[in-house]
Amino acid sequence: MKFPKLTLVGAGPGDPELITLKAIRALRSADVVLFDALANPDLLDYAPSAEYIFVGKRAGKHYSKQENINTLIVEKALARGHVVRLKGGDPFIFGRGYEELEYAQQYGIPVEVVPGVSSMNLPGLLGVPLTARGINESVFILTGTTSAQTLSKDLSVAAQTNASVVVFMGLRKLPEIAAVYESIGKENTPALLIQEGSLPTQEVLHTTISELPERARHEGFRSPAIILIGPVAALYGQKVPAEKSALKAALVAQANLVQTLN
Amino acid sequence: MKFPKLTLVGAGPGDPELITLKAIRALRSADVVLFDALANPDLLDYAPSAEYIFVGKRAGKHYSKQENINTLIVEKALARGHVVRLKGGDPFIFGRGYEELEYAQQYGIPVEVVPGVSSMNLPGLLGVPLTARGINESVFILTGTTSAQTLSKDLSVAAQTNASVVVFMGLRKLPEIAAVYESIGKENTPALLIQEGSLPTQEVLHTTISELPERARHEGFRSPAIILIGPVAALYGQKVPAEKSALKAALVAQANLVQTLN
Repeated sequence: MKFPKLTLVGAGPGDPELITLKAIRALRSADVVLFDALANPDLLDYAPSAEYIFVGKRAGKHYSKQENINTLIVEKALARGHVVRLKGGDPFIFGRGYEELEYAQQYGIPVEVVPGVSSMNLPGLLGVPLTARGINESVFILTGTTSAQTLSKDLSVAAQTNASVVVFMGLRKLPEIAAVYESIGKENTPALLIQEGSLPTQEVLHTTISELPERARHEGFRSPAIILIGPVAALYGQKVPAEKSALKAALVAQANLVQTLN
Repeated sequence: MKFPKLTLVGAGPGDPELITLKAIRALRSADVVLFDALANPDLLDYAPSAEYIFVGKRAGKHYSKQENINTLIVEKALARGHVVRLKGGDPFIFGRGYEELEYAQQYGIPVEVVPGVSSMNLPGLLGVPLTARGINESVFILTGTTSAQTLSKDLSVAAQTNASVVVFMGLRKLPEIAAVYESIGKENTPALLIQEGSLPTQEVLHTTISELPERARHEGFRSPAIILIGPVAALYGQKVPAEKSALKAALVAQANLVQTLN
């Protein structure tokens, strides 16, 4: 009989190359993999002999309540051994990973966590930083869908600062999010909506927070998507300033000289 | 002559297994790697034929100003081809990565960004989530050392919420950080200090925010370290609740039955 174990693994934001070596090693020793709609199914190739169970919450008849997932994890760990719970992004940022850890520990099952690249880091792929000197000095991450199904009230606090605000699962709450900014005269704050970030199907919408709800609706944006609001969002697609030709010429000359000397 | 290119690569928080496949692929095609003290030097093994340049900011005589790093990137890209800038964590969270991107683009050098696992995700390795249902619904990330060398004023905004507050480079500002919480009667907020997280040399300090400055000083904690402040920090090292023996027995029996049937 195998020793029961649970590993909560961050699968990264979508692109199967944005998974870590540590995550791959966990998958290779998995007896069972529980994965959801946000984890790229290509990653299952790293666990060819494991049992796969889809526990996606967004897929019609496959809908799995968190309680059922918790029970399944424990059942499979006791019966089969090493359960890998493959979760999109990082398992501990709005992933409900802690509920799974806590539940498994109640049955004496040891739990390991492998952090992943979070979806909050997706703007980087577009050249947009979460922090930039002289522009902002903090990042605020929140969910559009709290356990009470309401918009987090922390948004009105965050909106007062220059923080880069990243909203997870916020598409349905866009009008409320925009209203928070409008109520304090910040309706022109730049905003970026990234749908299916890092995948070939990625779509991006770049506008202001007050225009975002209507444009996202009109252009048919859907989940999964993250929303970035704040001055940094203005850096998306920014025109590159004129080339510093003189300095470039000097550097090329210097580089050629170095190559000649080598 | 090679085509100049810059790739800003997130090296992850320390453990060389917490790097992504995409980062490894970038390193494999690097002609020059610029790395700093926060990127694990073991990762250079992925670029065996590249030129390595240490540009760490915390290492005495090797001290490199950001301006010098920017110039070096451009110089090397024009002279050698593909420059990989290997940065600890994610390149776009307090990594000054955007300054490097912007500078390189001014010379017409194409820039790619590979997101990484941020140091903010380190508490996960200790079983501590950044978000947990019923405990908090947002995460606030800030730096203890802004460009003005002062503590970000955004902290006083964040401290008012139940947000998990993650402070980068905040060790020297601990007394000021604690004072913010004390001034609003939140001196007993749980706090976690993680030094050299994910490395074999990792050290952890778990206490309240008001006791953290003195204990960190007394116990000799040093950079690099991240600080987690908020209700979730109380989950560190939490006693696992009593085993649900009856349900466990039933699940084991069921699991054995399933195995027998197979």
